[in-house]
Amino acid sequence: MAKNDKTEKTGQFASELTPRSQDFSRWYLDVVRRAELADYTQVKGCMAIRPYGFAIWELMQQELDRRIKASGHVNAYFPLFIPNSLLTKEAEHVQGFSPQVAYVTHAGGEELEEKLVVRPTSEAIIGTKYADWIQSWRDLPVLINQWANVVRWEKKTFPFLRTTEFLWQEGHTAHETEAEAEEETLKILDMYADVCESVLAMPVLKGMKSQSEKFAGAARTYSIEALMGDGRALQAGTSHNLGQNFAKAFDVKFQGRDKSVQYVWGTSWGVTTRLVGAVIMVHGDDSGLVLPPKIAPFQVVILPIGRDNWRETVLPTALAIKQQLVDAGVRVTLDDRDERPGWKFAEWELRGVPLRLEIGPKDIEKSQVLIARRDTREKIGVPMDAIVGRVRELLDDVQTSMLRKALAFRDEHTQRTTSYDEFKQFLEGRPGFVLAPWCGTAECEAQIKADTQATIRNIPMGALSSPGQGGTCVRCDNPAQYEVRFAKSY
Amino acid sequence: MAKNDKTEKTGQFASELTPRSQDFSRWYLDVVRRAELADYTQVKGCMAIRPYGFAIWELMQQELDRRIKASGHVNAYFPLFIPNSLLTKEAEHVQGFSPQVAYVTHAGGEELEEKLVVRPTSEAIIGTKYADWIQSWRDLPVLINQWANVVRWEKKTFPFLRTTEFLWQEGHTAHETEAEAEEETLKILDMYADVCESVLAMPVLKGMKSQSEKFAGAARTYSIEALMGDGRALQAGTSHNLGQNFAKAFDVKFQGRDKSVQYVWGTSWGVTTRLVGAVIMVHGDDSGLVLPPKIAPFQVVILPIGRDNWRETVLPTALAIKQQLVDAGVRVTLDDRDERPGWKFAEWELRGVPLRLEIGPKDIEKSQVLIARRDTREKIGVPMDAIVGRVRELLDDVQTSMLRKALAFRDEHTQRTTSYDEFKQFLEGRPGFVLAPWCGTAECEAQIKADTQATIRNIPMGALSSPGQGGTCVRCDNPAQYEVRFAKSY
Repeated sequence: MAKNDKTEKTGQFASELTPRSQDFSRWYLDVVRRAELADYTQVKGCMAIRPYGFAIWELMQQELDRRIKASGHVNAYFPLFIPNSLLTKEAEHVQGFSPQVAYVTHAGGEELEEKLVVRPTSEAIIGTKYADWIQSWRDLPVLINQWANVVRWEKKTFPFLRTTEFLWQEGHTAHETEAEAEEETLKILDMYADVCESVLAMPVLKGMKSQSEKFAGAARTYSIEALMGDGRALQAGTSHNLGQNFAKAFDVKFQGRDKSVQYVWGTSWGVTTRLVGAVIMVHGDDSGLVLPPKIAPFQVVILPIGRDNWRETVLPTALAIKQQLVDAGVRVTLDDRDERPGWKFAEWELRGVPLRLEIGPKDIEKSQVLIARRDTREKIGVPMDAIVGRVRELLDDVQTSMLRKALAFRDEHTQRTTSYDEFKQFLEGRPGFVLAPWCGTAECEAQIKADTQATIRNIPMGALSSPGQGGTCVRCDNPAQYEVRFAKSY
Repeated sequence: MAKNDKTEKTGQFASELTPRSQDFSRWYLDVVRRAELADYTQVKGCMAIRPYGFAIWELMQQELDRRIKASGHVNAYFPLFIPNSLLTKEAEHVQGFSPQVAYVTHAGGEELEEKLVVRPTSEAIIGTKYADWIQSWRDLPVLINQWANVVRWEKKTFPFLRTTEFLWQEGHTAHETEAEAEEETLKILDMYADVCESVLAMPVLKGMKSQSEKFAGAARTYSIEALMGDGRALQAGTSHNLGQNFAKAFDVKFQGRDKSVQYVWGTSWGVTTRLVGAVIMVHGDDSGLVLPPKIAPFQVVILPIGRDNWRETVLPTALAIKQQLVDAGVRVTLDDRDERPGWKFAEWELRGVPLRLEIGPKDIEKSQVLIARRDTREKIGVPMDAIVGRVRELLDDVQTSMLRKALAFRDEHTQRTTSYDEFKQFLEGRPGFVLAPWCGTAECEAQIKADTQATIRNIPMGALSSPGQGGTCVRCDNPAQYEVRFAKSY
C-alpha cells in the first residue's frame, strides 16, 4: 500500500485524513491505515498489526513487563485451547463468555471427541493447573502472568479497540487470604494507571465496575477509564478480585497454617492491544498520530534539507547527528529518501514522531539545527553542540505536556449534576464524563442506558470507601449509594 | 506439585530421577517435571510452560530478537486464523500441512460459512498481506518477523520437542531477486547457528534438507542439526528459500526497476520452544538440568549454611553478596528457606543453576566463600572481596567449557563409512551422526530409513558447493552425489 499511496499525493498527504471534527471514527480508521499501524485481513474482525503499530505495542509491553516482574510476578504460558467442559465449570463465567467463543471441532483429520474452546481468557485452564501445583500455604502466593493471544467472537469490530483476536497480558494470582487478593487487585490497578499516565501520557480514572459490568465470574472488577478525543470513554484495563469463585469451580485448595483445608483467593487482570487504539484517540490530531516519546518507535526523525547536492553538503552532518543520538540511547531515524521536504514533513507528522530535526546548508553555516515539536508544532533553533541534551529535555517536555493537555481536555469534558433532565441534556452528543448520584440498582443503571446510551464507567475509589453520602439517585430519587462516572463508551 | 514432592524426599531429591543410561526419555520427562519446566494439561499434546521453563525461553527470545532486529528485521503480528481456502492455494503446502491442522468450525454461536485453520505456520496469511503491501521494487525487501503460537496436530507428542501447540518466531521476507532471497536464507541459518553455539552452548551442523524432508512449499530448506545426549539428532531450526512458490500462489508481485511486473522471491525461517528441550538433552546429567549461564534464569544461587542461628550469623553477609551481584547485572537468587543444605544442593543442581555460592560461619571468619560449578562440580574458594570478578570469569568459563564438552561428545559420536554393512552396524543403538555417500535419490533415502530408522539430517554446506566428488552411494552403488549426515532423530 505504501507506494501507490505515496505516488497519488503531492504534498497533501496529511490533508487526506478525514478531519476529526467531521467524523472521528473515519479519522481514526484513516490514521490506522495511513500510518501503517494495522490492516484488515480476510478473517472477519482479525487485523494484521503492521511493524509500526507493533513497535508501539512492544514498547508498551516492555514497560508493563518490567513492572510486572519488579512486583514479584513471573511469566509462564498456558495452552490456547480449553476443553469445553472446563469452561463450563464456573457458572457466571460460561454464561458471560459462551456466546463469544470459537470452537475447534476437527483436528488431525478427525472430529474431536470433545470440542475445544479457543481461549477467550485463561482462568479455566490456569485454575486446573493451580489445583495441581498448590498444596500448602507455603506455595502461596502464586503470581503468574502470561502474554498471549485470545479470541472473542465480536459482532462489531474496530481496529485495536475491539478485534476478534487480540494480544494481551493476563495475570492470574492465588493468595492465602481475601485481604491479600484485594491488595493484589488494587496494586495492579495502580500499576496500570501508572503505565497509562507516565508512559502513554493518558490520564485514567480508577474505580470499581458495577455488578452488571463486572467480569463474568469475578467478585469485583476494578477498571481504569480514559477519555478519548471525541468525548467517549474507553475501558483501558481491568483488575478482578475473583474471590473464591474459580478456586471452588476448579478445586484449588491448600492446607492453611492451622492445618485446615481452604480454597485460595484469586485475582486476574489484563490490558490489551486496545491501548494502541487509546493512544491514537487520546493524542491524535487532524495531521495524524501524536506519540508520547516513551512509546514512539522513533523519537526523532532527522530530515536533511537542501538543493540537489544535499547528499554531499548536508547528509554527512545529518548522519553524524544521528550517530550522536543513537549513542545517547535516543530512538532515531534519518529520512534520506528523494522526496520533497513538504511530503516528508507530512508523512512523519502522520506517524506522530515527537521531534523533527531539520538540517540544511544554512543551518550548517550557522552551526545549528531546527527542531519541531509534533505536539505543539513549536520550532526551536538548537546549537549543533547542544543537540543531545536539548533533545532529551524536549522529549521529557513533550511527554509531560502531552499528559497535561490530555488532563485539561478531560477536566473540560467532565460535568456533574443531580438533575436527570440536565443529565440527559449533558449526554446529548459526546460530552465526556458526567458524575451523578446513583442508587446502586441495576434497574436504574439499565434505564439510564436506555435513555442516554451512557453506562456507569466506574464507581470512584473515594466513593467506595464512604458510600451513602446523602442525596438521591439522579434517576429514581431513592437514596444515592455513590456518585458514579457515566459516559458513552467504546 | 512442589510441596508434596518436597516432603516426600529426605535429601535424595536428585536420585529420584531415572538415570540417563537406564532410560533417556524417562530421564528427560523426570527433569521436565521435577525442575518445574513444564506440565501436562487436559488438552492432548498441549503443555503448560511453567515459570522456570518460560524464563529460559524468554532469555532465548531476547538473544534472538536482538539479532533479528539488528539485522534489519521488524516484528509484526498476523492473525491466528487462516481461511481454509487460503491454505489450499499452494499445492505442496496444503498437502504437507492439511493432515496436521485444527479447524474452527463454529464461533459466536453459529456455524461458520468457511472453516478456519488455526495457523500451523503463516506463509498463507502473510502472503495475502504482502500482495497488498508490495507494489514496487522500492518496497523491497520486506523483512518481517513475528513471535507467535502455532498448532500442528501431532500423533505423538513430547514436552518441548513436539507439542500440539508451540511457541516460535517465524520470519517472512520478500526480495527483488533470487540471489537476495538465498543470501537471506543463509544469513538467518548462520544467525541461528550462532545463537545455538554462543548462547545455548549447543554445537550445530548446518546443511540442506533433502527434497523429501524440505518444508512443504519451499524450494530449498536449510537446517541446523544438534546431537542430543542419547545419540539422537534434533533439528534445531530451519530456514527456507521459498523461491517464487508462495508469491505465485498469493500473487505477490512488484514492478521491477525495468518496469516489468515480477513475482517476489521469498524466505521463511523459524525456531521454536523445542530449543528448551534441546538444551535439557544436550547438557543435562543424572542430577538434572545443566544450564548455560546465558540462558540460566538464575546464574548463581547463594546458599547460607550454618547452625540454627544462621539467620543472624550468615544471612546479612549473604544478602550483601547478593546485592553486589545484582548490581553487577548477575541473575542471582538466595535460598533462605529452612531446609537442610543437602536437600537445597540437590534441588538447585536439578534446576541446573551454573554456580552455587556457599557461605557459612567459618567462611565469614576466613573472609571467603565457596563456589561450586554445576557443570564440572569443581569447588573453588573465593576471597570475599573478589566475588564479583570471579563469578563473571566463572560464568564465562562455564559457558565456553559447556560448548567444548558438547562438541567433544559430538565428535566422539560421529562416524564415517562407505560400506552399507558397516553403516547398518553403526546405526544399531544410537550412535550419533554417520557420514556416508548418497546417490541423491529419494528411493535410497527411503530404503535406508526402512533398514535403519536413520534419516538424512542434512547435506553439509561444503558438499553442496562441490557435488559428485566421486565414490558410490552407501546403499545402491550408483555414483554418489554428496556425502551426507545420517542419524536417528527426534
